[in-house]
Amino acid sequence: MSQSFFSDHQKTLDAARKAIRERGYWSAYPEIPSGKIYGETAKDDGLKAFQARLGKSFELDQPGKVGEVGAERSPFGPAIDVKYPKVDIDELLRAAQAASGSWAKADINARVGVCLEILHRLNKRSFELANAVMHTTGQGFMMAFQAGGPHAQDRGLEAVAYAYDEMTRTPAKTMWKKQVGKEEFVTLEKRYRIMPRGVALTIGCSTFPTWNGYPGIFASLATGNAVVVKPHPGAILPLAITVEIGRAVLSEAGFDPNVLTLAADSHGAPITKDLAIRPEVKIIDYTGGGEFGSWIEKNATQAVVFTEKAGVNSIVIDSCDDLKAVTGNLAFSLSLYSGQMCTTPQNIFIPKDGITVGGEKKSFDEVAGAIVGAVNWFLGEPRRASEVLGAIQNENTLKRVEAAAREGEVLRPAGHEANEAFPEARVCSPLMIKIDAKQTELFMREMFGPIVYLIATDNTEQSIRLAAQGASQCGAITAAVYSTDTKVLDAADEQIAGAGAALSCNLTGQIFVNQAAAYSDFHVSGANPAGNATLCDAAFVTNRFRFVQTRVPVAG
Amino acid sequence: MSQSFFSDHQKTLDAARKAIRERGYWSAYPEIPSGKIYGETAKDDGLKAFQARLGKSFELDQPGKVGEVGAERSPFGPAIDVKYPKVDIDELLRAAQAASGSWAKADINARVGVCLEILHRLNKRSFELANAVMHTTGQGFMMAFQAGGPHAQDRGLEAVAYAYDEMTRTPAKTMWKKQVGKEEFVTLEKRYRIMPRGVALTIGCSTFPTWNGYPGIFASLATGNAVVVKPHPGAILPLAITVEIGRAVLSEAGFDPNVLTLAADSHGAPITKDLAIRPEVKIIDYTGGGEFGSWIEKNATQAVVFTEKAGVNSIVIDSCDDLKAVTGNLAFSLSLYSGQMCTTPQNIFIPKDGITVGGEKKSFDEVAGAIVGAVNWFLGEPRRASEVLGAIQNENTLKRVEAAAREGEVLRPAGHEANEAFPEARVCSPLMIKIDAKQTELFMREMFGPIVYLIATDNTEQSIRLAAQGASQCGAITAAVYSTDTKVLDAADEQIAGAGAALSCNLTGQIFVNQAAAYSDFHVSGANPAGNATLCDAAFVTNRFRFVQTRVPVAG
Repeated sequence: MSQSFFSDHQKTLDAARKAIRERGYWSAYPEIPSGKIYGETAKDDGLKAFQARLGKSFELDQPGKVGEVGAERSPFGPAIDVKYPKVDIDELLRAAQAASGSWAKADINARVGVCLEILHRLNKRSFELANAVMHTTGQGFMMAFQAGGPHAQDRGLEAVAYAYDEMTRTPAKTMWKKQVGKEEFVTLEKRYRIMPRGVALTIGCSTFPTWNGYPGIFASLATGNAVVVKPHPGAILPLAITVEIGRAVLSEAGFDPNVLTLAADSHGAPITKDLAIRPEVKIIDYTGGGEFGSWIEKNATQAVVFTEKAGVNSIVIDSCDDLKAVTGNLAFSLSLYSGQMCTTPQNIFIPKDGITVGGEKKSFDEVAGAIVGAVNWFLGEPRRASEVLGAIQNENTLKRVEAAAREGEVLRPAGHEANEAFPEARVCSPLMIKIDAKQTELFMREMFGPIVYLIATDNTEQSIRLAAQGASQCGAITAAVYSTDTKVLDAADEQIAGAGAALSCNLTGQIFVNQAAAYSDFHVSGANPAGNATLCDAAFVTNRFRFVQTRVPVAG
Repeated sequence: MSQSFFSDHQKTLDAARKAIRERGYWSAYPEIPSGKIYGETAKDDGLKAFQARLGKSFELDQPGKVGEVGAERSPFGPAIDVKYPKVDIDELLRAAQAASGSWAKADINARVGVCLEILHRLNKRSFELANAVMHTTGQGFMMAFQAGGPHAQDRGLEAVAYAYDEMTRTPAKTMWKKQVGKEEFVTLEKRYRIMPRGVALTIGCSTFPTWNGYPGIFASLATGNAVVVKPHPGAILPLAITVEIGRAVLSEAGFDPNVLTLAADSHGAPITKDLAIRPEVKIIDYTGGGEFGSWIEKNATQAVVFTEKAGVNSIVIDSCDDLKAVTGNLAFSLSLYSGQMCTTPQNIFIPKDGITVGGEKKSFDEVAGAIVGAVNWFLGEPRRASEVLGAIQNENTLKRVEAAAREGEVLRPAGHEANEAFPEARVCSPLMIKIDAKQTELFMREMFGPIVYLIATDNTEQSIRLAAQGASQCGAITAAVYSTDTKVLDAADEQIAGAGAALSCNLTGQIFVNQAAAYSDFHVSGANPAGNATLCDAAFVTNRFRFVQTRVPVAG
């Protein structure tokens, strides 16, 4: 059975392996939520499947159940009220350890086949997952479908491709023949076994539970580890569905389904710290806030730790040919999911004396005004605004927006645009504030959510320096620069990418600074405080397993 | 200049890259200390070069010198009395950071070329290094030449090969073209830069300063990090010579020589802890005792940490065809360098009711006696004994031997065989003690040095279980099993290799359990407490650098 999963999907795996080497555009899972691709009834079926979960107990048939937990509410308003198993950590970890034995011993193709089949089934369930992601994270439907479905699946497949490459790069056995005397040889058969670390813990986040969770889950599974998924209490459902699908595939393939388990908790009784320092936990993948991420890095010293935390992403505007093309591009980046992406720009640096646009001088206020105007225009169409903004996942974000508004000159107040489909949606469009480059205490900190600082600098040199400093000091995942001067682009590359932020130059049109594509974009560099790991590179998988060898002499 | 280094040695690199994939026998640096290979005067020249260092100041022309330090004494007797720069840590780290800038930006081939040239020059200086290793570690000359010279150089080259593969596996740039509308495409040029972590610290050990030090030093250098070498105060000279050679090559290639620096200290005023937790230090390679290694793993959370600590290596004797072949092989393994290898067996498990040898029953005492007899016979030839045993590096080892002798039934007392060439040599041949499997407090702990426990077990099943338990609990790097029964071999493979110890089966003749060959043997699995890293695998290099990307739109 499991061998058939591998052969069923081997072409997909091979294409993904090629893609991570060439790093051009490729995708295994279509991002268009079209009936022609996913089946004419897929959209309705997915919605119904989601709705059928609401207000019910989510049965997972995993050990250690000691009650129920779950208090998710849709940022769009509706109650979710799904109850998940509350687990006894001791029992769950025992079950995970017990399950990891035969999983670790399975051959690479069997394990990788299971992973590929899980991804395949997740893809078929993309509409159900889209609804689950939408109503836990607050993402608009299209984004929830793409980022929560196919793009997340691509990220998972990318991790499987890296894991497969690294596990198979060393032969399973070899012959070693050495001359040890005039006519004397020693020949050893050497066998190299893949030895997984044991139990891995994936700590999910509230904004991108699948996109950020799948790489770690699939990297650990493929390399033979049992995975305990600890979702954010605000976004359990997408990962619970994932675990359910995964357990079904594991069982069908003849493995103990406890290779993949869910450990849900509540805001009131969090279990993450307890889990993170358990001696049984040998790998941790964490996505979330910086403070807690740093706590894990410092305290979970028994585990190999991969973190994606957060940071302060910057945009440097120096000059351009077409300001409208620039501001139109920025308007989307700033509005998308109300700035709740770890890749959304926060700080926009503009020289106080203005910039050159197609040979003409534009003042700071004209440039800032053009960005504000573009955001207003873009959000002026209510249906588009609702779809792009989505809703605010965490109400603390609204409080942060309110506090920020009192600290500078508001060029654009945060908007609470009406959402026709969901009147109760927690909507908040970008607050845009003008400040001075001297006010470092305001912008040299992460202000997660729809908060944008338009920062007047002495000149572009200072803009670049501050953007780089923000990355080094607070972490940064992305950065962008707009300039017609190659020297400026080179300086930004040198300093800002040199501070570990993925840099985009002169982006206009349908490509955005906050988007990262699987198989091509390294998401998070691991080279500044925004995180210590990358989705995905070889380092993301190589330390999830070890090689252990056996040598046997062979008669000469 | 630096490009010529790369092309000079590219064939060597390519052969090493092939070797780590195929993992058969290969070596770049001849292990025979022959005048025909190294030059007729090489041996004398090396000895003279070594002697010329004695009693002098070792000049390194590196910044931060605030005095001198150094109190090495040869375990063979002679004073060494070389004085090394005592460094101001602040100033040294500043210099290392400053040097790392252009080193990080150099292209891969330039850096790798420098590494290959350093290794090439180290190889030419193998006789000098052999003397330095011999008179700091206590290894006999032949071993000091092989393990301290060519074998160490091979381990360094292996690390460079891994680093080169992993850095070049991702293209430096690519074109990414995605369809975003009916007729609309977005094309991005993406550039991926290698970004080293910064400053790496290599903490050397007293027994194999070069063999255990080179992998980390060369892995960090090749991936663009500056390396600070902190040798063990008892074995500074081999690494000081290495740093001297490295700095000369760096300078010739136009780099700041402070890419490679020495931070020597003394037993009385150790600097390792201070260095290990400095925020500038982003990578640590540690070889040494378990307690301090665990301290580093727990406390140096600002760095990526690679450790090789120690453990309890076991031998399980179940049955064999030719007991003499077994005991002859073991006699060498137990005697070599007086058991001061992290791969030397400590615990030999034999069923209390004896074993079957070629169909005949041999009692425990007969088997134990045969091993003792083989050691006695092997060490009965004084010149061979002197060469193989070498001398005891640390006098605490002698105290440990004395203490151990009081704890069980001594089958063979430790011998203090005369060394004709060095009458003052601290010689100690293996103490062999018979104990019972119940006395876990004696053998479930590391007793570093020439201490061998012959442990009477209920049966082979228990032998295997105890060997595996020792590996899991105390760590183990190697293990061996002797059996004519494939079921026993399979069980040992399952349990002992399954506990992360490299297992050798039925070794006889000229291949020994404590030997690990570059390009083929994974030294330390990282899968038990004996260490968290392997010399070498991909995981040993992938996290020493990061990828940071830059994206630029290309007109459709």
